[in-house]
Amino acid sequence: MLSFTKRSEYVKNPILEMDALAAELSRKGRDVIKLNRGDPPLYFKTPTYMIEAYIEALKENMTNYSSASGTAELKEAVSRRYKRMYGVSVDHAGVIATAGVTEALSFINHSMIEKGDSAILFRPHYPQYLPRLMSENGTPVYCDQLMGQDWDVHLEGFELKIASLKRSGRIKHVKYVIVTNPCNPTGKTIPRKTLARIAELSNENNLLIISDEIYDEIVYHGAKFTSMSEAAVGIPHILLNGSSKNYDSTGFRVGFIVIPGDDKTSMSLKEKFTDYALTRLSINTPAQHAVAEGINNVKEHRKAMKAMVKGMQERAETTVRAIRGNRHLDVVMPDSTFYVFPRIRLSGLDFRTGDEFVKSALLEEGVQLTRGSAFGAPSNFRIVALPGKEVLEEAMSRINRMCARHSRTP
Amino acid sequence: MLSFTKRSEYVKNPILEMDALAAELSRKGRDVIKLNRGDPPLYFKTPTYMIEAYIEALKENMTNYSSASGTAELKEAVSRRYKRMYGVSVDHAGVIATAGVTEALSFINHSMIEKGDSAILFRPHYPQYLPRLMSENGTPVYCDQLMGQDWDVHLEGFELKIASLKRSGRIKHVKYVIVTNPCNPTGKTIPRKTLARIAELSNENNLLIISDEIYDEIVYHGAKFTSMSEAAVGIPHILLNGSSKNYDSTGFRVGFIVIPGDDKTSMSLKEKFTDYALTRLSINTPAQHAVAEGINNVKEHRKAMKAMVKGMQERAETTVRAIRGNRHLDVVMPDSTFYVFPRIRLSGLDFRTGDEFVKSALLEEGVQLTRGSAFGAPSNFRIVALPGKEVLEEAMSRINRMCARHSRTP
Repeated sequence: MLSFTKRSEYVKNPILEMDALAAELSRKGRDVIKLNRGDPPLYFKTPTYMIEAYIEALKENMTNYSSASGTAELKEAVSRRYKRMYGVSVDHAGVIATAGVTEALSFINHSMIEKGDSAILFRPHYPQYLPRLMSENGTPVYCDQLMGQDWDVHLEGFELKIASLKRSGRIKHVKYVIVTNPCNPTGKTIPRKTLARIAELSNENNLLIISDEIYDEIVYHGAKFTSMSEAAVGIPHILLNGSSKNYDSTGFRVGFIVIPGDDKTSMSLKEKFTDYALTRLSINTPAQHAVAEGINNVKEHRKAMKAMVKGMQERAETTVRAIRGNRHLDVVMPDSTFYVFPRIRLSGLDFRTGDEFVKSALLEEGVQLTRGSAFGAPSNFRIVALPGKEVLEEAMSRINRMCARHSRTP
Repeated sequence: MLSFTKRSEYVKNPILEMDALAAELSRKGRDVIKLNRGDPPLYFKTPTYMIEAYIEALKENMTNYSSASGTAELKEAVSRRYKRMYGVSVDHAGVIATAGVTEALSFINHSMIEKGDSAILFRPHYPQYLPRLMSENGTPVYCDQLMGQDWDVHLEGFELKIASLKRSGRIKHVKYVIVTNPCNPTGKTIPRKTLARIAELSNENNLLIISDEIYDEIVYHGAKFTSMSEAAVGIPHILLNGSSKNYDSTGFRVGFIVIPGDDKTSMSLKEKFTDYALTRLSINTPAQHAVAEGINNVKEHRKAMKAMVKGMQERAETTVRAIRGNRHLDVVMPDSTFYVFPRIRLSGLDFRTGDEFVKSALLEEGVQLTRGSAFGAPSNFRIVALPGKEVLEEAMSRINRMCARHSRTP
């Protein structure tokens, strides 16, 4: 019989794991509200100026392989974006186009992690960091972001963890630290001081700093977003980004790894990831032209972003408002992204686990959420607050209804 | 200092390894003829009906994530393609869309290969099989295709190899056998009898059969192409294919894994590769609509293929004709693909290796080829016979000139 590698068992996606069940319920006539997948173009049309650029690329026969690490046009656009937004200089070699951030994660873990190696993740973390790490035989070392502190990183805990890893000698097997800022699933930006301290301590201990900033323009409520490229000046680091969220085009599959430094570490990273890009020849070529235009046409982009971010803010507010009165849930108002990540007060409900809560939400109420355990926060659940106001209000009222029905106390 | 995994050293692409040098020569004013990358849309425009379908998808806002393993529309189109072309039934679960065949190779090797494992490759082999295998800590077991026998597989050698692996007990660590048919780089189809014998013996020894058939419609000179799905009926196997070559759209990055069986092995493969697809969320969405139309519109496709395959045949003939008179080269006329793979008679030249020959062709004559050593055939080199007649004749005359200049005997 055919056998698969042990590590392939970690290749999973918890965000989509109930899709088949949800589809089956839909087929049976249930009105399922899907709040599991962060897919903005389903609710906010991809801007017309980008669609027009995409069509132009097709009409001009840009249908062959591009340069493996991205077209010069896209590299230039990304380079300018970082100059414009963060005052950071990035050369073309420091921009490597990837088929979304997920491909960047596979390059990183495949090139850096083998049996016995670790990486530091801040809980709650984006679920896909874990299978990518573990399927290369690596193990996670967890640090925390504290809900009670507005989801900021627990810096003291991070420092203690580093100290403990140093004492045990394990620190040399820890390869990287990954930060998601703005954070999926918490919906919060990470303060500049926190980023600077993470960068400093990571650098002192030879840990590569990776900052996933795929939501860096989806910021509201007057929050101040700081890029790792601003907080870690002079320290080697990698930024992950792409067109999916900020440029509202998940289906294009255009991501980019950005490496601003020209120190020895940064140079070797540029070379290594370029080699990885070469082995899969190219990403979609005409989409790169659309994304380059998406970035370069600053005027149209700002207009589109303003409307989209306003809509996302309103939806986050609607969602939080609708569950704030529910005594079984705690929730922090996001200042970025389109996620809401409530905590369930399990003691007051007859669910034993958050997983049970989430499964019941789908089975009993037709609301598809993502279980917090996938993010390393088993008492929470993630809501994708993207559908319109009415749909979100209906979904939240179903969740509230379920909580009332499962309450241990009247 | 940052260190990378040992296995990441195998992540290389020899086909593109001289691109930087070629670009530098071009910048210095040299007229470089690039015959290294198999990129049909550079020379044959992607059919208009496919471009129109792509534009339609964009206008209809198909810009969000698709189902991870491919749109239902694409799966249906691929399923019908196999029914129409080979009389084979494939269900939707048996079609997994990938970002080109390269992504399929990464799914296969990541899920099947770990340290101590092997796979059987037929030399000369497509270069990208090797880094994918070796970067998962696997090792190749080579069997041969013989130039003297019209590049057919040396079946006796294959049988002896299997017998030897059985005797040593190593056979249980050999996970799969991969066949490229039509073959890149030989440009030859593999006879049905050969395929049937490979399938039979592989199945007897629990080796998964993988058949890369990405050129299955680029067949000429009256050759009869047989798909593994016709030769291995009732035996579990995987087919690799995609839009890049047959549908003349390398830059779309739409490939597909096809698993026709519903036996236990085939079912577990369908499930495993779907899990892999889920972790990277989606491939480019609007391109899938273009490829579905590419496949479904049989009339337009046949018209486009007829013209393209005729052009490819003529170019292969032009190439072979132009070097047949060169006593330092042996060449087999292809019956498929757009590759020509001559052997260098090194004894008559002052080059020590085929690699030197290929490097000199670029440096001295501005012709970029790919070294045969990348294919496991160090005395050969690969020509991509895609540019027009005049360009190919000029390139071949430069190669002939170089051979004359480096001849040991007058």
